[in-house]
Amino acid sequence: MGRRLAIWFDYASPYSYLAVSRIAALRDVILPEATIEWQPFLLGPIFMKRASGAGAFQDVSPAERQYRWRDLERLCALYSLPWQKPRRYPPRGLLAARVTLVALRQGWGEACIRAIYRAGFADDRDMADPAVLGAVIADLGQKPDEILSAAQNESVKAQLRAQVDAAMAAGIFGAPSLVVDGEIFWGNDRLEQGLAWARQVWM
Amino acid sequence: MGRRLAIWFDYASPYSYLAVSRIAALRDVILPEATIEWQPFLLGPIFMKRASGAGAFQDVSPAERQYRWRDLERLCALYSLPWQKPRRYPPRGLLAARVTLVALRQGWGEACIRAIYRAGFADDRDMADPAVLGAVIADLGQKPDEILSAAQNESVKAQLRAQVDAAMAAGIFGAPSLVVDGEIFWGNDRLEQGLAWARQVWM
Repeated sequence: MGRRLAIWFDYASPYSYLAVSRIAALRDVILPEATIEWQPFLLGPIFMKRASGAGAFQDVSPAERQYRWRDLERLCALYSLPWQKPRRYPPRGLLAARVTLVALRQGWGEACIRAIYRAGFADDRDMADPAVLGAVIADLGQKPDEILSAAQNESVKAQLRAQVDAAMAAGIFGAPSLVVDGEIFWGNDRLEQGLAWARQVWM
Repeated sequence: MGRRLAIWFDYASPYSYLAVSRIAALRDVILPEATIEWQPFLLGPIFMKRASGAGAFQDVSPAERQYRWRDLERLCALYSLPWQKPRRYPPRGLLAARVTLVALRQGWGEACIRAIYRAGFADDRDMADPAVLGAVIADLGQKPDEILSAAQNESVKAQLRAQVDAAMAAGIFGAPSLVVDGEIFWGNDRLEQGLAWARQVWM
């Protein structure tokens, strides 16, 4: 069994954009021999299990909502990551997650993930729109019609449901979540700590 | 006007324990000329303004609650801070906050704040208990009866209500919150970023 950093992400989560954009470079420095395991999932069904049934971005006060956008803007400036506050939030990430499962099977998953997040949070394009996803897919040198059609296969839908079940079984309640050897590190803020933890466990 | 780092904290917030324990050492390194402005307040009345009316620690799933305790344990290990998960959570921090206002007026505020947090989160003593607070006060060389009685003066009660109003007016929705030049940095996780921000603004 290789050394695997499982990163669980939801396309509706802007902090997942930060983590997904940073994890490979951190891995290269801290744990070059580790493999990143890309784990798309959906937070929606997990939030529905909460008493209030509300998602992280819905159940916050106006002050907290305003803060989060400012926080994201400041963090992106700090990381030199392109950022645009999406006009519509949260995006529906269902189709994007299914496309990602297809891309991961075919070996172009990481590029696909980064490109979808960039579309959503750097370019303010609606990732729920098949035309937007199609353009992203084409930019990656893949065939949009084929991929979008494969993404709607029953096996892909079932795989995404299984991802959600696996996330919940692992104790995941938010995104991004890095899972190392059974330890959860929740949030872009915990990425460095999670990698340092893995290094200590594995070395 | 001096250079002031306003740190807003609630005694029910374990992450405030981390921030309050770390901020002076960070200030010494990053911004030695800055003054820390200790701002006790209560999150309860602010949480009540939320749609769900629930506080940050009440409205979370069992998975998230379990994660937070683990996260606190790991962070305290990382910072070499003593830690014990409180048997009763959250503590009622009302009297502790009032005592703190008295201590701040009298010039022993910082020591008082650190000692109360240590009682709550390192020693698992109930900070809502006047006997516990009295012992903390006595350890600091102050007179417990006098201070506990002063803490119940109408002027102190009014001052704490004004603190909550000021926090809300400043856009604060969680604790700890560092406020620098109108910018809010929420959470122990943002302490370093907030201080670096202050340094950039002030230098």
